[in-house]
Amino acid sequence: MKTKRVAIVGASGYSGEELVKLLLHHPYAELVAMTSRQAAGQTLAQVFPKFASHPQSQSLRFVEPNAELLAKQADVVFLALPHGVAAEYAIPLIAAGCVVIDLSADFRLKSAEIYQDFYAHEHPAPELLKKSVYGLPEIYREEIKQSLLIASPGCYPTSILLPTIPLLKAGLIKPSGIIADSLSGVSGAGRKAEVDYLFCECNESVRPYGVPKHRHLSEIEEQLSFAAGTQVVIQFTPHLIPVNRGILTTLYLEPEKHFSSAEEMAALAGKIAACYAAAYAHEPFVRILAGKSLPDTKNVVGTNVCELAWRLDPRTGRLIVMSAEDNLVKGASGQAVQCLNLLSGWPETAGLV
Amino acid sequence: MKTKRVAIVGASGYSGEELVKLLLHHPYAELVAMTSRQAAGQTLAQVFPKFASHPQSQSLRFVEPNAELLAKQADVVFLALPHGVAAEYAIPLIAAGCVVIDLSADFRLKSAEIYQDFYAHEHPAPELLKKSVYGLPEIYREEIKQSLLIASPGCYPTSILLPTIPLLKAGLIKPSGIIADSLSGVSGAGRKAEVDYLFCECNESVRPYGVPKHRHLSEIEEQLSFAAGTQVVIQFTPHLIPVNRGILTTLYLEPEKHFSSAEEMAALAGKIAACYAAAYAHEPFVRILAGKSLPDTKNVVGTNVCELAWRLDPRTGRLIVMSAEDNLVKGASGQAVQCLNLLSGWPETAGLV
Amino acid sequence: MKTKRVAIVGASGYSGEELVKLLLHHPYAELVAMTSRQAAGQTLAQVFPKFASHPQSQSLRFVEPNAELLAKQADVVFLALPHGVAAEYAIPLIAAGCVVIDLSADFRLKSAEIYQDFYAHEHPAPELLKKSVYGLPEIYREEIKQSLLIASPGCYPTSILLPTIPLLKAGLIKPSGIIADSLSGVSGAGRKAEVDYLFCECNESVRPYGVPKHRHLSEIEEQLSFAAGTQVVIQFTPHLIPVNRGILTTLYLEPEKHFSSAEEMAALAGKIAACYAAAYAHEPFVRILAGKSLPDTKNVVGTNVCELAWRLDPRTGRLIVMSAEDNLVKGASGQAVQCLNLLSGWPETAGLV
Amino acid sequence: MKTKRVAIVGASGYSGEELVKLLLHHPYAELVAMTSRQAAGQTLAQVFPKFASHPQSQSLRFVEPNAELLAKQADVVFLALPHGVAAEYAIPLIAAGCVVIDLSADFRLKSAEIYQDFYAHEHPAPELLKKSVYGLPEIYREEIKQSLLIASPGCYPTSILLPTIPLLKAGLIKPSGIIADSLSGVSGAGRKAEVDYLFCECNESVRPYGVPKHRHLSEIEEQLSFAAGTQVVIQFTPHLIPVNRGILTTLYLEPEKHFSSAEEMAALAGKIAACYAAAYAHEPFVRILAGKSLPDTKNVVGTNVCELAWRLDPRTGRLIVMSAEDNLVKGASGQAVQCLNLLSGWPETAGLV
Repeated sequence: MKTKRVAIVGASGYSGEELVKLLLHHPYAELVAMTSRQAAGQTLAQVFPKFASHPQSQSLRFVEPNAELLAKQADVVFLALPHGVAAEYAIPLIAAGCVVIDLSADFRLKSAEIYQDFYAHEHPAPELLKKSVYGLPEIYREEIKQSLLIASPGCYPTSILLPTIPLLKAGLIKPSGIIADSLSGVSGAGRKAEVDYLFCECNESVRPYGVPKHRHLSEIEEQLSFAAGTQVVIQFTPHLIPVNRGILTTLYLEPEKHFSSAEEMAALAGKIAACYAAAYAHEPFVRILAGKSLPDTKNVVGTNVCELAWRLDPRTGRLIVMSAEDNLVKGASGQAVQCLNLLSGWPETAGLV
Repeated sequence: MKTKRVAIVGASGYSGEELVKLLLHHPYAELVAMTSRQAAGQTLAQVFPKFASHPQSQSLRFVEPNAELLAKQADVVFLALPHGVAAEYAIPLIAAGCVVIDLSADFRLKSAEIYQDFYAHEHPAPELLKKSVYGLPEIYREEIKQSLLIASPGCYPTSILLPTIPLLKAGLIKPSGIIADSLSGVSGAGRKAEVDYLFCECNESVRPYGVPKHRHLSEIEEQLSFAAGTQVVIQFTPHLIPVNRGILTTLYLEPEKHFSSAEEMAALAGKIAACYAAAYAHEPFVRILAGKSLPDTKNVVGTNVCELAWRLDPRTGRLIVMSAEDNLVKGASGQAVQCLNLLSGWPETAGLV
Repeated sequence: MKTKRVAIVGASGYSGEELVKLLLHHPYAELVAMTSRQAAGQTLAQVFPKFASHPQSQSLRFVEPNAELLAKQADVVFLALPHGVAAEYAIPLIAAGCVVIDLSADFRLKSAEIYQDFYAHEHPAPELLKKSVYGLPEIYREEIKQSLLIASPGCYPTSILLPTIPLLKAGLIKPSGIIADSLSGVSGAGRKAEVDYLFCECNESVRPYGVPKHRHLSEIEEQLSFAAGTQVVIQFTPHLIPVNRGILTTLYLEPEKHFSSAEEMAALAGKIAACYAAAYAHEPFVRILAGKSLPDTKNVVGTNVCELAWRLDPRTGRLIVMSAEDNLVKGASGQAVQCLNLLSGWPETAGLV
Repeated sequence: MKTKRVAIVGASGYSGEELVKLLLHHPYAELVAMTSRQAAGQTLAQVFPKFASHPQSQSLRFVEPNAELLAKQADVVFLALPHGVAAEYAIPLIAAGCVVIDLSADFRLKSAEIYQDFYAHEHPAPELLKKSVYGLPEIYREEIKQSLLIASPGCYPTSILLPTIPLLKAGLIKPSGIIADSLSGVSGAGRKAEVDYLFCECNESVRPYGVPKHRHLSEIEEQLSFAAGTQVVIQFTPHLIPVNRGILTTLYLEPEKHFSSAEEMAALAGKIAACYAAAYAHEPFVRILAGKSLPDTKNVVGTNVCELAWRLDPRTGRLIVMSAEDNLVKGASGQAVQCLNLLSGWPETAGLV
């Protein structure tokens, strides 16, 4: 298998660290550079003692980010940067012929207007939005293989889109009235020195935030609208819970066809099961739970798997779908590596199991 | 103030322990007896070292439960027992003239049929259902003062009913389409030796359970139906999160009157604010958050307060209400003591602040 | 009982917050002022939503610290400030006739040289070291009653000194070879925005720090030396563990008199039990555990109690003493309030149970 | 590389689960059977949803333990059973020609008398104690390669022996006066339905236990005595802390040669560094931390690495050594797989990085 040289810009945050971990153990990717303003000059072993037993832990050293240099060193560059900043690096890297896999929100939207509405500043490179592909392999596998600019999806969006898109495409649920209630581990807030994310502020605490207009709504609704073929507006409430990693999303959906008898319910259940089987039975990283099992973040943390279960409620007529994923893996860095595998012609699961 | 002698049946579980704590420090209640099958014969200090500095920690001893004896010793008896078992003690205690405050589900419903539907066995004392009062002081204050049998509400129901009942009564929200998404600390499962609630099974884990028909739905819907004057069916999804205590509920509600302009939204917001102010501004244990604050369980744990905040979402037309409480205090033992205060003619906040 | 007006300088940190909580519920102290640079201008309810149900939560407002003004408003001023900064406020406040209870390290040592050795700067007011009293009531009760400047002990020192001083004074253990291994909750690090104390850095982590020369050694050794009547040097290893509150200290001590038979061991055990009983049987805030119980931080968190247990090990000849306390209560703010009670002539337990 | 068929007896506990995980991903071991009384009849996917995406998750099914059958199916059998029970399976399996890797305490001691002293019953197969090898590869690598019965070390012993044995062998520390203070995650208690290990009993709690004579002392002291060439008795205090995984041990050691000047200290430091380098510089699973780093369980959890750091204290003359490991990996299942690799002639790190 042909190897590729990869680099990470912004490698000292939580997503960056997870990328480092995945790429150090990847069979075909060679990690050649890592940048970090704060950590520049230090070795991998110094910044992350957990990697100190890896053969490259002394030789790999964090450097100041420099797009020109990176373009020479690497075939593929991952950007694990705040939105707005990522675009600054993406533009010269793409111009220099690098493939860019961006973990920020900068290239996830097709509409620069929606970007401005949700992110409160003009999009820095609207022309690139046409070139970028939304890096959700289960939905855009073929496009990802051909792309030079991958916009890796957000953690919340992944947990919402994977359960919802197949149902919308199959016309099994209404595109209106969708509610997503999500619970996220604290690593989702990033490795930022802020009082709100101190141990004592998060431990023995649960709280909603960003109600009612969280930024991730923009990409969720754009993708759902593509799937539904109509404008979709959803309700989304994120909550912060005291775990390091993991997102648990509970979706409240309305079946397109009302059911009132046990027979109608069984018929609908059959269609939903068939829809999910068609969509995901052969997907290596989506797991439809059988029997009485319900998703639990502890079953997916540390893996690139998104776990799903669903229930029809005969009392309310609703369909409840629950998903669990690791926000740093399937919700960020694992998914980005899955895209790397696709565009490199490697097995999709390389370095991810 | 005239004192009362109180006893606790089932005092070694989490609600029982919290009752012990509250009653040991209560200015007018005298804790005269505590029962526990497992702990019988041991002193309070032996079973709960945390109370060992209290003057009564050596003299108070757990005993085997005996209704006849309890009826002689105590004026008021708290039952902190599993459902089904509680009724066995309530019947003779009431017959003997005791006031009973039951923390189980046994007397919360008015309908014995609904009880059987949700609890899978016949109600043990259907005639007592007429006498019992649902012990939610903010709704049934006057009835509680006169009652001999208080059915203290469940933890989830309290977190759902307090935010919802005033809005339903005022006709501000539709009685249909209500969704309650709740997150509970592990103490809600009780002090039971089950693998599912071991530290390593709950820590770094988040999971839904009891989907879609949790038992607490029965009392929630009965109370909401009383408030709405019509049959209410809701969607309810409980989740287990790794905190000891606390429930956070997010409610998705549909305003009765659709709003489409900023003016209509402001008008509706004014009505909601007025409705909550009328209901709770003078309540000692309900706190409507002002400004940008959202509920956080860490602000209510250890107190009898239920904290509320709400937001209208102009994008979806929905009203989102969020509540936080301590499941063992306002969701169980604190609320039961609040009822004790009411029926004893003591200040409602005695022993609770 | 005569009331006193009290103020808190630095009221927005963890110790400050705990002081606010204790003083708001204190029967004889009236909290008249709270200062905080970051929170100045905001009400108590805004900064700490958990106190929003208190009658003073709207009227009490954080202000910029101003010693002159504080001296007019308050009889007693608590300083919950970093070391070095505390002295700046203590000097004018004492000059103005206020009683100062300082929770920092600034006045805990009698020796300005040792201060400089451990804190790496000259002591800002060496003449005040003669006036200050080390605020450990179980040891310096009478001195505290007369003092105008109380140096409230550190959290680690309290957990080490209470178990050790009586044994040293009684000559039951050697003053050499003492080892203290301590585990502290994260609130001990203060409410500081530092990456090291983020939730994800502390959760699922345990780590030693400050090895081998932690600053608290200075006051521990000075106090142990006073008790032993000879220079004491100890080994002390603090560890950070993922709990909000609580310190658990395990002490490795060598009995003065070697024991080799079961009889000798029983005799020594009798002396140790008698020593602790003489020292603490009547202390409201020290609890000697009986039987097989060992200290557990969950039994003391939220209280002003320090819990102790001890074991003689016939295999090694050592005495193992274990203590547990809440680092923010008996290890900081509760102890400071205990001192307030003493110097005000109030019951020592006022506001603390 | 020649593959081997392996089986796990007692595969539904925490060590068993970790073995399953490691062996499912092992390049040369083929997991052919898993037994569990409670889980018999269920598939791997049903019992551990986290493995449900593995190709074998449906075909692998838990069975009742049957030594005769296992002996036919497997070349190597891991026993993840309580002590006392393990021996029952080991005897027939060894008789049938299987290699046995036992994770219990049954074959760790050479002395049946010491076993009886610490485990309170007669050793079930004293003749096998001569054949067994203590499965600590860094110390007994060559013996492990030849052995048919590996006694995989306990989690606490591993964290104490690895830092201590090289120093004892080199005569750098005294064999007397050793103190080991250890902190363990809750998985060390096993997947047992006991109230003491419920989430709410462990979360926000820290406590010592098994003071002063924990069972692991027997194997620790036996191994230390072998290394020292003299009888070693140590002080050992285990504590339970609220993390799922990880052991942090702090060792208090006395250098054989007293140092009093900076030069003597530097000389001793040089010898210690050289000793550890000679012992571990080429070991793949022991990491000596450089610079200011101290061990942190979060850097080793999920890996087979034991991390070490040490400090000389010029104030007390002691050597402090701190170690961190994952109690379920290097402290149990990972170490057992390391032994499997050695005795199978595979690379020692196979399946462990």
